[in-house]
Amino acid sequence: MSSSQPIAVFDSGLGGLTVVKALQKNLPNESIIYFGDTARVPYGNKSQNLIQEYGKEITEFLIKKGAKAVIVACNTASALALPLLKNIFDIPIIGVISPGAEMAYSVTRSKKIGIIGTLATIQSKAYEMALQNLDNTIQTKAKACPLFVPLVEEGWLIGEVPAQIAETYLSELIDNGIDTLILGCTHYPLLIPVLEKVVGNRIRIVDSAETTAKYTADLLKNLNLLTDNTTDGGLENYVTDLPVRFKQVARRFLGREIDHVSPVHLG
Amino acid sequence: MSSSQPIAVFDSGLGGLTVVKALQKNLPNESIIYFGDTARVPYGNKSQNLIQEYGKEITEFLIKKGAKAVIVACNTASALALPLLKNIFDIPIIGVISPGAEMAYSVTRSKKIGIIGTLATIQSKAYEMALQNLDNTIQTKAKACPLFVPLVEEGWLIGEVPAQIAETYLSELIDNGIDTLILGCTHYPLLIPVLEKVVGNRIRIVDSAETTAKYTADLLKNLNLLTDNTTDGGLENYVTDLPVRFKQVARRFLGREIDHVSPVHLG
Repeated sequence: MSSSQPIAVFDSGLGGLTVVKALQKNLPNESIIYFGDTARVPYGNKSQNLIQEYGKEITEFLIKKGAKAVIVACNTASALALPLLKNIFDIPIIGVISPGAEMAYSVTRSKKIGIIGTLATIQSKAYEMALQNLDNTIQTKAKACPLFVPLVEEGWLIGEVPAQIAETYLSELIDNGIDTLILGCTHYPLLIPVLEKVVGNRIRIVDSAETTAKYTADLLKNLNLLTDNTTDGGLENYVTDLPVRFKQVARRFLGREIDHVSPVHLG
Repeated sequence: MSSSQPIAVFDSGLGGLTVVKALQKNLPNESIIYFGDTARVPYGNKSQNLIQEYGKEITEFLIKKGAKAVIVACNTASALALPLLKNIFDIPIIGVISPGAEMAYSVTRSKKIGIIGTLATIQSKAYEMALQNLDNTIQTKAKACPLFVPLVEEGWLIGEVPAQIAETYLSELIDNGIDTLILGCTHYPLLIPVLEKVVGNRIRIVDSAETTAKYTADLLKNLNLLTDNTTDGGLENYVTDLPVRFKQVARRFLGREIDHVSPVHLG
């Protein structure tokens, strides 16, 4: 393993670009490979079997492309496939659940933490288990929000409709007295303005993209795997459906244009 | 080809069960095979290449299972893959676009027809072309409604949120003076109560499931392919993800339990 190899990030679709953005901020000299499984997105309503199979295929592909570490940016894949991937592969495999749980634990005062995510992520209870491992006196309240991903992909980020959907999903969590809300899906950070209005300023919103990037930086430093490169590391993108739409939506996530997008056939 | 062979219906997911329901009503003695591509659902945001590839794989599978005719219940697949499938395969391949367009043409008086569907269906302009072929004085107004499918899968069929989403999507069509609205997606019939409230009783809603079933009955009769069987024909289901969720949601579509669901691996 050489420190000059790239860090790979994969997600079911485009949401993982929020992790790429955070990585680029924290580790600007690292080369990054992004893999978006756009032909098979979304993972959130699919079975554990299928998500594990997809995770294996993609991780194998990324290791062939030279990845020194793989970040499973997709919360659903982190929740359902991470233990398996860690078992199978030798390189560091980093999920988004633990960093998100640790961040939430560090900011909560009431020890009442809300979790929102896809159906599969919520059903897996992965965040609850991660939080319980940190402190078994933590109380959690989780809610699947299947309409948030299509809202973000539709670009419907402000106004009455997303506000009403968010109120419907979140009212139970708010009534439960949470003081911290984990965004358990990489799409959700784009809804932060509307979520902040709904939960008010008493509830702190935790976005795992930023904490995962920091966790990755620490881990690679400890393993002596940070690059010596001193210039912009660059970003290579691979997608399983056509690159055109990826480029369009990716701009919304990264806030800048992307050039290198290659189609890949898996499965 | 024997008339005792089954009719096959395929869809990206579960929506095509609205066509199965209509077939069972019109042709109760026919054996039906349903194929739901639940591992790769939804098709609506994917590329034509990919949807054509999926359509070929699935049609090959259904022909191996003995299908005497294949109904492409998915509007997106009908819009993007039907001409290709008709070219490749020898058995009758029936889409939902033409029957839907013909029904809309038969009910419109103002000749102003609205069309709603997934992004891919709307971008394909398949309904516009089918309507223009019938009568080039027809005016159409189309709108992609990407949030309707997740709303239906979430079971969020009544109340303020679906009404607001429907109003946002449909206001432009209503303002255009349409008197007929084609539901260009097999999920949408479940939203008919909320859609009727939004469009009012001046606008007639056309659901292609029912017309496709009637079109299929006529076609098979003309080809001498209607079954001689006089008992309930039965329903076999194949899905590409785990059958458990399929059974749960299928009940919502068919209004009864289903027994025979087998997992299939394609791709």
